[in-house]
Amino acid sequence: MIILLGGKGYIGSAYRRYLQSHDLAFAAPGRKEIDSINAVQLAHFLHQNRADFLINAAGYTGKPNVDACEDNKADCLLGNTVLPGVVARACAEAGIPWGHVSSGCLYSGRRADGAGFTEDDAPNFSFRQNNCSFYSGCKALGEEVLASAPQCYIWRLRIPFDENDNVRNYLAKLMRYERLLEVENSLSHLGEFVSATVQCMQKKLPYGTYNVTNPGSVTTREVVEIIRASGVRQWEPQFFASEDDFMQTAAKAPRSSCVLDSAKIIEAGIKLTPVREAIGRALQNWRPEVASTAPLEK
Amino acid sequence: MIILLGGKGYIGSAYRRYLQSHDLAFAAPGRKEIDSINAVQLAHFLHQNRADFLINAAGYTGKPNVDACEDNKADCLLGNTVLPGVVARACAEAGIPWGHVSSGCLYSGRRADGAGFTEDDAPNFSFRQNNCSFYSGCKALGEEVLASAPQCYIWRLRIPFDENDNVRNYLAKLMRYERLLEVENSLSHLGEFVSATVQCMQKKLPYGTYNVTNPGSVTTREVVEIIRASGVRQWEPQFFASEDDFMQTAAKAPRSSCVLDSAKIIEAGIKLTPVREAIGRALQNWRPEVASTAPLEK
Repeated sequence: MIILLGGKGYIGSAYRRYLQSHDLAFAAPGRKEIDSINAVQLAHFLHQNRADFLINAAGYTGKPNVDACEDNKADCLLGNTVLPGVVARACAEAGIPWGHVSSGCLYSGRRADGAGFTEDDAPNFSFRQNNCSFYSGCKALGEEVLASAPQCYIWRLRIPFDENDNVRNYLAKLMRYERLLEVENSLSHLGEFVSATVQCMQKKLPYGTYNVTNPGSVTTREVVEIIRASGVRQWEPQFFASEDDFMQTAAKAPRSSCVLDSAKIIEAGIKLTPVREAIGRALQNWRPEVASTAPLEK
Repeated sequence: MIILLGGKGYIGSAYRRYLQSHDLAFAAPGRKEIDSINAVQLAHFLHQNRADFLINAAGYTGKPNVDACEDNKADCLLGNTVLPGVVARACAEAGIPWGHVSSGCLYSGRRADGAGFTEDDAPNFSFRQNNCSFYSGCKALGEEVLASAPQCYIWRLRIPFDENDNVRNYLAKLMRYERLLEVENSLSHLGEFVSATVQCMQKKLPYGTYNVTNPGSVTTREVVEIIRASGVRQWEPQFFASEDDFMQTAAKAPRSSCVLDSAKIIEAGIKLTPVREAIGRALQNWRPEVASTAPLEK
């Protein structure tokens, strides 16, 4: 029995779909059923439900974007830094392994040697470096809180995308903006991320941190070209002159743009599609957004 | 009506004594009565009790010392970083002013120009500087969370001491150790701290941050000399050869030692006794620890 925290969110919904379609038994308690900041209550819930594994897909990401975290610092800390620590304690008490959906946003750029960041590289976009968004700082501190957690996977997601039009989908986001920032990033196909992380559990890979990104990296311009070539949207976005220009005119919090090395999880036998191919395939299978509200009453 | 959070702690107990002896109406809800991490519940409590002011003396300090914070990171964050943010929101919703007991441990040493740190100096012992204990990092981040809080006092306490023998009293701590670290610090006489902060409220001083320390600074050796001269304890403590020696043999987390400038609060008309005089007076009035447990049943 898998316990899924944050099952109503964007990432959590993808876990629900995956677990359902793979006939994996799970429970996704909501906030009414469980106060996951309360380690005792959570441990009790794990015991009652005979949990074998827990997936923490809960977190605070800020709406409409990461800038909201600058104005809601306590929520951001609670969801991204304190919650992982509480979950770690509850899982340790229950004696079960678990996985935490972390983020690749702890990094900026590439390594000094030009390579992508591996799991052994210390975050360089964090409170410790004093150059980060509040969100990235909280996420990095969340990993720090888990440093000594037993039986714990830390799965780093990096800018999710897939074939479903949704405001949280990177491809859909790009298509909605008229002005973009040219940066280079590694990305995670949401479905592949979920599948890869569940395989970590099933194959009993060694505990620890895994960069779960599609191999390679892309620049914003490259993604725009792939979108235009796919025919899903034809538009001529403008680009900010520089990151300074972007920060001055459009953003509050600095953005993390970075290249991650996903060799560790791939060498562990888990398949992830190279990023350009994964983007192309998502666009081929593009599904317009389905209205998420119920039809109006007649 | 004043609401006191953390009224059962070392600092909170001093507030209770002060408020009682000055006939100031207050309520000190315990954890059973109120979950202060729940802003909605806290706002409701403030409304129900017609609160005019709130004092947040709640926090997580680690027992027996700050090293415990390294092992209990989620609790440390919850108590020292998230809680202030939740309290700020509840007080803003209730429209009442409030004061947060912060700490001077956000600093290390003296300013580059040799002066003590003022409220305008950015913390230099924090996650942002990547040189701090987890406790100091959380306290500094707690002040950051409050940066935009309206009607909020941030009162910085620095190593409390007074005339009551207690494991939390700096003078009593020193007397209990056989080996000490020679450092220079500003200190806060607990009773004077409490009195000064309540006067901030009563005199309606401008909101913002105040270093509430007794003017001046002392070194560990100087305090030992004052204790010996007072006759309260005669002992010949050893000293660690250096901070490195201390860190290697006795401590887990780096300690903050720092000199603060308390001119701002003093210029606002609030009296604080110079630190050596305050220490001498505490030792003159020294009261041995009273057993804190009830007598055994007969």
